[in-house]
Formats: sequence, C-alpha cells, structure tokens
Amino acid sequence: MASYLITGASRGFGLALARQLASLPASDVSKVFATARGESPALEGLAKTSSGRVVVVNLDVTNEVAVKQAAAEVEAKLEGKGLDVLINNAGVCQYASEGVKSMDNLAESFTINVLGVHWVTRAFLPLLQKGSLKKVANISSTLGSITLARSAHYLPAPAYKISKAAMNSLTVQYALDYEKEGFTFIALAPGWMKTDLGGGDMADLTPEEAAKASLDIIFRPGQELNGQFPKVFVQGWEKAKGNNQYDGSNSAW
Amino acid sequence: MASYLITGASRGFGLALARQLASLPASDVSKVFATARGESPALEGLAKTSSGRVVVVNLDVTNEVAVKQAAAEVEAKLEGKGLDVLINNAGVCQYASEGVKSMDNLAESFTINVLGVHWVTRAFLPLLQKGSLKKVANISSTLGSITLARSAHYLPAPAYKISKAAMNSLTVQYALDYEKEGFTFIALAPGWMKTDLGGGDMADLTPEEAAKASLDIIFRPGQELNGQFPKVFVQGWEKAKGNNQYDGSNSAW
Repeated sequence: MASYLITGASRGFGLALARQLASLPASDVSKVFATARGESPALEGLAKTSSGRVVVVNLDVTNEVAVKQAAAEVEAKLEGKGLDVLINNAGVCQYASEGVKSMDNLAESFTINVLGVHWVTRAFLPLLQKGSLKKVANISSTLGSITLARSAHYLPAPAYKISKAAMNSLTVQYALDYEKEGFTFIALAPGWMKTDLGGGDMADLTPEEAAKASLDIIFRPGQELNGQFPKVFVQGWEKAKGNNQYDGSNSAW
Repeated sequence: MASYLITGASRGFGLALARQLASLPASDVSKVFATARGESPALEGLAKTSSGRVVVVNLDVTNEVAVKQAAAEVEAKLEGKGLDVLINNAGVCQYASEGVKSMDNLAESFTINVLGVHWVTRAFLPLLQKGSLKKVANISSTLGSITLARSAHYLPAPAYKISKAAMNSLTVQYALDYEKEGFTFIALAPGWMKTDLGGGDMADLTPEEAAKASLDIIFRPGQELNGQFPKVFVQGWEKAKGNNQYDGSNSAW
C-alpha cells in the first residue's frame, strides 16, 4: 500500500513508470500521482482506466510557486496520509551541435534538470516525511558521470551531461541531510531508452524494460543505496561494454 | 614570455596569484591581465608597481556582454599576440544554514561559478588558440567532489558543492573538445585557504602558499593533466588525512 509521485509522466519513461505501477495490485500500489506540464491523452487514458489509482497533476517543475501548489493539491488528495516514493523524472536533453563552445542552453538545462528537482523535492519533503518508505529516485544517466565522460564524448549534449552531474551532486546533498530520518535518495541510471529524449530506435531499451528494471531498484528495501548512483540490471545487457552495461552496479560519479 | 588572465583578482587567492606571477621575471611572465568586478586598491597598487606587466580589467563574469567586451579589450592590449593561460578563479561560496532544504542560492551560485566560467572561457578561446601554452585552470575545490561528499557534509554550503561539481563537469567537456588542439583544461583544487571565501584563520593554507602550489601545477608542461582534477602539493600537508591531503594527486570526481 504505497503511494508514488512521478514527474514528467506525459510520455516516454515517465509514462512507462506510471503504467507499470498501475499494473501492480492495489495492495502494493495505492496511488500514483503522475505529473505533466501540458495535456497528455495517453496519461489521461491511463488515469481513466485505473479505478482512481492514477491521478494526473498539472505541474511545470520550473515554476516554484506552481510546484508548491501541486504539493498542496497532492496533500489534500492523500487525506492525511504521507507520500511514500517520489520519482523526479521530468527533464530535458539539450544538444550543442558544435560542442561546448556552441552551448547556449546550459542555464535552461540547469533550471529544468537541477532546480526543478530541488524545488519538487523540497516541496514534497513534508509529505515524504509522513510516508513510510521515504524514497526519492532522481532519474539520472551515466552521461552525467564525469569519470565516464570520455566514453560519452561522441554525444554532443554538454548541457545535459553537466546538468546531470549537478543533479547527482544535489542528490547526494539530500541523501546526507536526510539519511538519519530513514530516507533513501538515489541518482538512478535507467539506461539508454527508445524515447523522444533518448535515442529513438538506436537506443538499447524500451521504456517498459527500463521502467521495470528501475522499479526493481526503487522497490529494494533498506537504505543501502542512499547517496548512490545505481544502474539498472537488465538480463542480456549485464555483460555489455562501456556505459551500456546494465549490470545493477553503482556507476562512478 | 607567457601571458596570463586571472578572473576575480581583487582579493584573496586571485590577488595572490597575480602577485606571485608579477614577482617572476618578465622573461617568464610577460603580462598578467587581472580582472575585478569592482574597485580594488590592492590590485591597483600591484598594477602601479608592475612596470606595465599587470593590467587591471573590469569584469563581471555574470554579464556575458561585458565578458565579450573584456575579451576585445584584452585582444587589443595583446597587440596581435595570443593569450597563454586563463585562470578562472572568480567564484562565490554560498551557505544554507539549515542544509539543502534551506538552499535558495543555487541558481545564483550556478550563474557565477558555472555560467561565468563558461562565458569567460568561450570568449577568450580565440585568444587562447593563438597562444602557445593553451592552458585553462578552473579553480575548484574537493568540496565539489561527489565521491568525497560525505567527509565534507559538516560544511553547510550545498550550492557551492553542487556548482563546483557542475563546473568540474564543464571543465571536462572543454578538455575533451579541445585536447586535439593542444589544450590542457584542469579543475584545480588549491586547498582550504585563509581567505574571505575560505575559512579565515581556521583554514590550512595562506593564499600565498596556495597560489605558489597552484602555479607549480599550472606551469607543468604537457597535456598530462588535461581533463583532470589535481590537488596542490604542499610540503607538510602531503600526508594529512581526508580532503585536506595536499599531495599533488588527482581527486576523485
């Protein structure tokens, strides 16, 4: 009987997470708050067939006032209960075709991928403190690993990489501040996905595969992963080479 | 006969770097462009006694238009020569007394410590490409290391730590893009200093000690350190424990 909130659930990985959670028994997943910035017929469709378990919440993570309003809305709908799991999934992957010197989108990437995560986490923290699981998964990427940067140099998305490194650092700051209260904050690398943000058909995993593997990590009991950067485990990919090795180990920062 | 540009040279570590460079023979250091946001009597005094070798440049790194104007001003003063070394030192250390949940200065820290470094580097890149040394040192801190975050948790400066992690990632993006042209980009950890930004008298090193040890690293020939995160080497501190071990090794990211 756990409640979840997923940001950026209108499509791709966020929608796959919401679908996967909604497919589990109500005894495991009581409520899924799925946030989206704009209209999402796919998400609305999921909500309609969920017997009230999936609740769509309008939310632009770059607007801190709106984030606080969304937290108040969710609090009212929880009717005194806490929120158990927060999945900060909303994000953008912005490119700079001529490399870092042509990067004019760093401030925007930072606002969405870092400030957005900070504002959402801070606003929902009181509800998470009332929850029983106290888990926050910030969706990251091994592209945000500074240690692995050389092997990802072929992809001209410096603002994405830099903002994810910053988000990873933010995740660890929260992890250290709240571990004594029983929280588990993780920067989760779900793998390279066939989504709009990801690599289309060239990518490794379907959003459904990545969502299932990510939830395997999020469901893991205990605080062992607090402040860590776990990669998903996906059968058939656990022995791949380089950044696409989905073996469930923690990535280097 | 090398030329240098140091941002944030009005006081503390930046001023110590300018002083140290100005004390070297003109056959080694031809010109030191020392930038400051506002008035700095100490820096003006250094310039006046430098026989024209230290040139003060007005610069606010958070204003991209002003950064471009400063690059044009320096270009004119170099009279056709290139710039050899850029030291991105300007930065702030902002605190959040109740930890990450009270952090309201992340956007500001990011603008100064990350966007400022990006804008200055990009604007001076054509001059650096004309220079012979092609070195860029971005002044960082082991507080920006995500790997070492737990040992630095006592210091409630999350915006500083997160922005330095982002600056480290930015440094590596530049390092990878420009290493084929002979550039060396480093994220340099100069140690904990007795400065306004640092720890006052509680800190480990005087700005003069840190400046000398930092220049030892910057002067090192070759590209071996490109994309690395070197700590300074300071005799007497090389066997200290934890983050204050100034043994000249590379820090974990």
